[in-house]
Order: sequence, then C-alpha cells, then structure tokens
Amino acid sequence: MTGSLAVVGLGPGDARWLTPEAQAALAAADVLIGYRPYLERVPARPQQTRHPSDNREEGARAAQALRQAAEGARVAVVSGGDPGVFAMAAAICGEIEAGPPAWRDLDLAFLPGVTAMLAVAARVGAPLGHDFCAISLSDNLKPWDLIERRLEAAAEAGFVIALYNPISRARPWQLGVAFERLRRKLAAATPVVFGRAVGRADERVAVTTLAAADPAAADMTTLIIVGSPETRAIARPGRGPLVYTPRATQGLA
Amino acid sequence: MTGSLAVVGLGPGDARWLTPEAQAALAAADVLIGYRPYLERVPARPQQTRHPSDNREEGARAAQALRQAAEGARVAVVSGGDPGVFAMAAAICGEIEAGPPAWRDLDLAFLPGVTAMLAVAARVGAPLGHDFCAISLSDNLKPWDLIERRLEAAAEAGFVIALYNPISRARPWQLGVAFERLRRKLAAATPVVFGRAVGRADERVAVTTLAAADPAAADMTTLIIVGSPETRAIARPGRGPLVYTPRATQGLA
Repeated sequence: MTGSLAVVGLGPGDARWLTPEAQAALAAADVLIGYRPYLERVPARPQQTRHPSDNREEGARAAQALRQAAEGARVAVVSGGDPGVFAMAAAICGEIEAGPPAWRDLDLAFLPGVTAMLAVAARVGAPLGHDFCAISLSDNLKPWDLIERRLEAAAEAGFVIALYNPISRARPWQLGVAFERLRRKLAAATPVVFGRAVGRADERVAVTTLAAADPAAADMTTLIIVGSPETRAIARPGRGPLVYTPRATQGLA
Repeated sequence: MTGSLAVVGLGPGDARWLTPEAQAALAAADVLIGYRPYLERVPARPQQTRHPSDNREEGARAAQALRQAAEGARVAVVSGGDPGVFAMAAAICGEIEAGPPAWRDLDLAFLPGVTAMLAVAARVGAPLGHDFCAISLSDNLKPWDLIERRLEAAAEAGFVIALYNPISRARPWQLGVAFERLRRKLAAATPVVFGRAVGRADERVAVTTLAAADPAAADMTTLIIVGSPETRAIARPGRGPLVYTPRATQGLA
C-alpha cells in the first residue's frame, strides 16, 4: 500500500501561522478533502483534486479520505486551527475504529497547528498564562447539561475558560445561558475576550467584562476566553488593554 | 520610540513547527532574550545580540527585554511552544503592570506557536478531540492543594487533562501524587500518553494506562495527557495505538 493520509492543521486565518510541516504536506498531496472555506485557503496546484464539503459532514468526509488513502492516494484532510481540537482528527480516528481492519495499517500522520485560543490569547496578552480549559459550546453531540456542569466545574476550580463553537444559527441561546451560569461563579469584572475571525482581514478582537459580555457580539468564527479569578486587564493609553493570567496564584477564595 | 518587543513561540523542538510569522520576527530582531536551550534553536545572525538565561529568571528576563525595547531596540523574547501557555508572555505582562508607565506604550506583539500538548496529541491521534484542560504541576508558584483540587474537578467533569511541567529535580513527588488522585476518579484503563522531547531527535512517545502510568517515565521535557472517561485507545498491528476522544458524548456516569 502506497497511499497515505495526513490530517493537516492550517492554523487560524493568517497564512503566516501555517507551519512549514503543514505546508509541505499540502504540497505533496494528490487529494485534498475538507470544509470548503478551509480548502479555499490552500493554493491550487495542478494534478491535485479537491473535495470540498459542508461543515456537518465530518464522518462522511473522514471515511472518504480513508477510502482514497487505502486505494493508494496521498490524501490530506484539511482543518482550520489544530486538527486535534474539536476538528477532523477525532473524526478520522472514529472512522478507523469503526472501519475495515486495513485502515489501521494506513500510513497516517496528524500535523498540529496553532489552535484558535492561542491566536486569540496572543492578540491581547496572555490570558491562558495559567491553568485553563477548552470547552465546545456545541450541544449537537453532547447534552447541554453536561456543558453547564463543565462550565461550573471549571469556574469553581479557577480555570481560565476558552469557548469554542460559541454560537450558530442552529444554536442561538447557548452562549447567553453559558454567560449566566458563569456569572453565578465569577466576579462581574472578570475579563472576557471575544476574538472574531482572528488572523483574517475581518478580524475583530474585543475585551470586555463578564457582566457586560453580550452573546450577540459572537458569531460562528468567534473564540471566547473567560478569565479566572486571577486574570487581570491592564489599561494602556491609546491601545487595547493587556489581559493576562499570572503564573503565581495564592489559592481559591 | 522606535523599539519593539515580540514574544515569540518556537513551537516544540522540530523547526518544521516554527511559524513563518515567528521566523520573520526572529530574523528582524536586534536582541534575542530567552532560556538558553530555546535560544540555541534559533540560527545565529550577525549584528544580533543574545542574552541566554537560566530557566528560573523569568521576571528578570522579562524586565530586561522591556528595558531594552524602551531604549529603542527591536527585542525578541523566545519561548518554546506557545509563549502564552505557562511561558514568557504572562511574565512580560506582569512586568508591564508593575513597571514604568512608558512600558504600556511599547510596540508589543505576542506570536503564537504550537504548544506541546498539541504536538504530543498529534503523535498519537486526537486525545484532545473533546473538552480538555491544561494544568501545570509546578507548585513553585501555587499551592499544591489547589493543583489537586483542579485535577479532581477536571476528572470529575470529564475533561481530558494535559499536564505541563510534570516533574523536575526540585519537584520529584508531585506527579506520582497526581496520578494517585486521578486514579480515585478515573478508570484504571484510562489511556495516558507520555510525550517526551516531542519534535526532537530524542523524542519518545508512549501510550499506557492510568493504572500503569509510572512517574519515573517522565522528565522535565515530558508532556502528559490523561484521557477522560470517553477517551479510547485503538490497537494497530505493527504500530502504536491510536488514542482519541470522540466529539459525541452521552454524559457523565
């Protein structure tokens, strides 16, 4: 078998965040598979076929990639950010587990990338400078009460919280409820960062407080960081505030 | 003022994980400041001065960088991985908050990188494919009981757990205690990944179980991922197991 499958993270929108490893894998692939807006970020090459797909077809996309690799193609599956964080890598693994034994013998590589929370954090300072967690607010594949429980556990234990998939047309109310739950556990002045389309031309990053955080300020391309009780915002004249979480912590109240 | 300060993430050991943005910032700097092993990964350039330092001098290193930038130099502070994750970015912010007002007016940029947990996860599949957290096991700057509380909260709430700074000569027992605490909350078969020196020539990645996890298998360059109750290991003939956490979750027991 000469085929191979690379699961490639593009990083957030800016091409300057694409690693050389990912760039080489994209250039070497015969077949590119992925959600259409991600594929559009990859420069076209002759002799390379492309299979853009809808956002919701993760399992089908993963199975298609595995079939083509098993047939001998060099396949690259393209994800935004890091493919291992709420993205295609887990879907590929799931299809391998459920699929024919030959898929376990494929030449398979996962190529890490800069995930959105790191890029958003970098725009404002170091909000992820101390213990933190990442939670997907999508309740398409898990019960909402589990998400609430994780939000509350994270806030109580003093984790900074990065929220992936905060809102969509099909999930309009979840982010507002998440903020409500967090307001029960965290101070009104807790810094909150909205990072929209980070690294793209239409990037918009805003720092606010938990009391003032407005779900309507988020869309599908937004990553939100909610501070811990230790997170601080430093005002700067003529610039946005710096937000950071110190490494030194005295303990929880 | 013409000086500037870039806080640059090199990613883990492999130069193929260094982003083009980080590479450009390193090339443009007059002054490089950082922990010696990180500086050694940056190719030398004429007219560039270097200030390697010890691992423990984060505050002094940050202040030195800010002073030199305020005096007009283009300074790059170099971190392994991502500078915002248990690294120099928070130290820089802390010095700015405590330092002279002029430091708030500096031309300051944080450049994200591939943090260690993403690289280790990529080596084995997608263990961070669902909600996860990152905890530093260092109790140099926070009380140990807070670390235990976070470990237990994370395990109970079903987060995958990435452990940074698991062990050192000065902190020899903490990792063993952490595993003990986690064994009270998680099944013996929970997958555990040890990723040592990932991306370097001496990389060693091993998959084991929580029951079998041996603190002696970790050193200062190791990043450990402890699965959630949903995390699965798939055996592969002639290859290491795939470890992944599915996006679909039924809920907690």
